[in-house]
Amino acid sequence: MKFAAPLFLLVSVALFAEQPVLNKDGQLQRPANVREWIYLSSGLGMQYSANEGQGPKTFTNVFAEPTAYREFLKTGKWPEGAMLGMEVRKSQTEGSINKGGNFQTDLIALEVTVKDSKRFPQDGWDYFAFNGTAQTTKAIGQQAGCNACHNKNAAVENTFVQFYPTLIEVARAKGTFKKSVEQ
Amino acid sequence: MKFAAPLFLLVSVALFAEQPVLNKDGQLQRPANVREWIYLSSGLGMQYSANEGQGPKTFTNVFAEPTAYREFLKTGKWPEGAMLGMEVRKSQTEGSINKGGNFQTDLIALEVTVKDSKRFPQDGWDYFAFNGTAQTTKAIGQQAGCNACHNKNAAVENTFVQFYPTLIEVARAKGTFKKSVEQ
Repeated sequence: MKFAAPLFLLVSVALFAEQPVLNKDGQLQRPANVREWIYLSSGLGMQYSANEGQGPKTFTNVFAEPTAYREFLKTGKWPEGAMLGMEVRKSQTEGSINKGGNFQTDLIALEVTVKDSKRFPQDGWDYFAFNGTAQTTKAIGQQAGCNACHNKNAAVENTFVQFYPTLIEVARAKGTFKKSVEQ
Repeated sequence: MKFAAPLFLLVSVALFAEQPVLNKDGQLQRPANVREWIYLSSGLGMQYSANEGQGPKTFTNVFAEPTAYREFLKTGKWPEGAMLGMEVRKSQTEGSINKGGNFQTDLIALEVTVKDSKRFPQDGWDYFAFNGTAQTTKAIGQQAGCNACHNKNAAVENTFVQFYPTLIEVARAKGTFKKSVEQ
């Protein structure tokens, strides 16, 4: 019985690897359980240019599909079919017994990135933004600014591992952390 | 084969429920995989009194042990042996290509709360703060301020479900959300 538990876990993980589901028009089906994927990090009001608009600050929570995450821990790379999801949530201050700082409330959007080198030959990745509760959405497209910026500035492939504290050392150890973006 | 996958999942979840491990002095062993538990929410610089010190803002990330989380989804309550973990992480702005807002960096502390009605007869819960990489730590104690404040102000038992957006509606639907803390 010594190996029964690990065996069951391995079988389950293999059976439950969540792969991207795209319809015949290339639209991605909204993944059902992003909140139960592995958490990578959160930011508040993150800006990437000095002249960005000063709208209300939002939280961004990033998650990796668990099978892809475990592959990253082993290799420092994302496997084909990997998905990362980013929730955009409203930020509130002073509610309930809170007297300062920021906490999270309603979901505004869910953005998902998919690695598929055949479907997205230019960068290997593309992005899908589900506004509100949208169940399908089309790719943002290889020519959009997101792709160019992620490809140039992200620490590992097109993913901003430099902002995911528990993955930084994994990528450095595996030699996959892009040297040009070291802080 | 239709039921093979759900069966494997159920067996695995049952085998891998992570229970609190306390030594003979009542010290809690640091749980190994809090980052792989289910994410509940994050805050930045949250304050609970108007005159709190104005030190550097920290992020707090809250996770629930997966078996306890699934029980909460079904019942709106936490089972005996439930653990929630809260990471306290440094916040940084302007690093790599970031030009504003806040992102997370180093872990400062890990705080864990445990539900054990026999061991903690007053409130049913107690708190354990692991500074840095500490592997064991003693309970903060039933008389400490944390217990009194959580017991009085938390939405479900001693847990601040009012700040965990995906659990709020679960608790309301199950009738376990404390009416006195509705916002």
